[in-house]
Amino acid sequence: TIVEQLTHFFNQRGALVGRRVLITAGPTQEPIDPVRYISNHSTGKMGYAIARAFAMAGADVTLVSGPTALPLPHPAVRRVPVRSAAEMFRATEAEFEQADLLILNAAVADYTPAHPAHQKIKKKEAEFSLELTKTVDIAATLGARKRPGQLMMGFALETENEQENALGKLQRKNLDWIVLNSLRDAGAGFGHDTNKITVMDRGGNVRVFDLKTKEEVAEDLLTLVKEKLANP
Amino acid sequence: TIVEQLTHFFNQRGALVGRRVLITAGPTQEPIDPVRYISNHSTGKMGYAIARAFAMAGADVTLVSGPTALPLPHPAVRRVPVRSAAEMFRATEAEFEQADLLILNAAVADYTPAHPAHQKIKKKEAEFSLELTKTVDIAATLGARKRPGQLMMGFALETENEQENALGKLQRKNLDWIVLNSLRDAGAGFGHDTNKITVMDRGGNVRVFDLKTKEEVAEDLLTLVKEKLANP
Repeated sequence: TIVEQLTHFFNQRGALVGRRVLITAGPTQEPIDPVRYISNHSTGKMGYAIARAFAMAGADVTLVSGPTALPLPHPAVRRVPVRSAAEMFRATEAEFEQADLLILNAAVADYTPAHPAHQKIKKKEAEFSLELTKTVDIAATLGARKRPGQLMMGFALETENEQENALGKLQRKNLDWIVLNSLRDAGAGFGHDTNKITVMDRGGNVRVFDLKTKEEVAEDLLTLVKEKLANP
Repeated sequence: TIVEQLTHFFNQRGALVGRRVLITAGPTQEPIDPVRYISNHSTGKMGYAIARAFAMAGADVTLVSGPTALPLPHPAVRRVPVRSAAEMFRATEAEFEQADLLILNAAVADYTPAHPAHQKIKKKEAEFSLELTKTVDIAATLGARKRPGQLMMGFALETENEQENALGKLQRKNLDWIVLNSLRDAGAGFGHDTNKITVMDRGGNVRVFDLKTKEEVAEDLLTLVKEKLANP
């Protein structure tokens, strides 16, 4: 819309102008055979709201997106559609060098079928074992290659020992922030239009936010990034 | 819409009036843990088009639907939303006795995780085996209970030995028709707005249809049913 174009234009002097922001969003689909796959309940709404907020703030946004039904969040966003965890890794890695900030919001499959079938698997045995292998950990792999000045925000969805697990991820993956979503909070997480987050950073700060719309959560994350850019 | 209501009203004297038609549509989602699941690429479009065509023809339609993004296909359709294969079986079985015609179009998972986890599975081992068990075969189970005068239409999606496999299903599951979708035909099957079908019946008739919109395919299936009702 004209408003979006104008807002983008007038934000050309903002803190995010000229910053290349790489965002991943949505689920991945891991093929079992030509018709079946493993996926998860991510809708991509949170990542798309973040992409929109950063684009509105003048950033140069690339959105690597798993399969979703969502429209492009902002005309200035460049979307790279992917399906599997392997495709998401390749697309994200390809954009990594140029990115000033990575926001890894996608719910990437941790495991993928080891031997996807080229034909539809016929139903015979009463039971069978699907062999799965670990996918590339995108955050850990790129976190290890992070250059000075490059910032990374990761997301964690935990159902047990939430803060402890999330903090472990922050350190292990060399992230600057980890955003914790809890499945325990009513109205938060997959499929909802609202979210309740806790953000931890490398300095040991823990910020607990209220339940908000995903658009408001995206604004809060944008504010955190702006603060960090102002005080590196 | 008013047109739909009127069409439904004026079809009250048609061949389908007073006929209770039970249709299944869409994929199923089989939980691995609270966030992950196994599913398939069915969108539900074909089953929803069939539900609409039969409702327009005056039938009393119940639509047992797996997770889809589709709106109710017709105001006179009663939709029963389900998620897993087990839920789809229970919902379909509950409606089975009253149904005059069953159209089993859903892409029901053949296998489901044997031990779905109550907590999100943590990523540790490099590989793991997901134990799967066979789900209830809805068509075979209900086909075995079919009463005289009750009609059943099944669907088959084959990637190999298509007609032979489909005909085997027709006989084994005690169906009256089997509708074969081929993944090999361009523009046919999951996610497309068009479909190319071959219909086989118990009399040994094989009818090959052209590539058509799913709405047109639904009309063809309605015609086959009307013919059968006129010449039982």
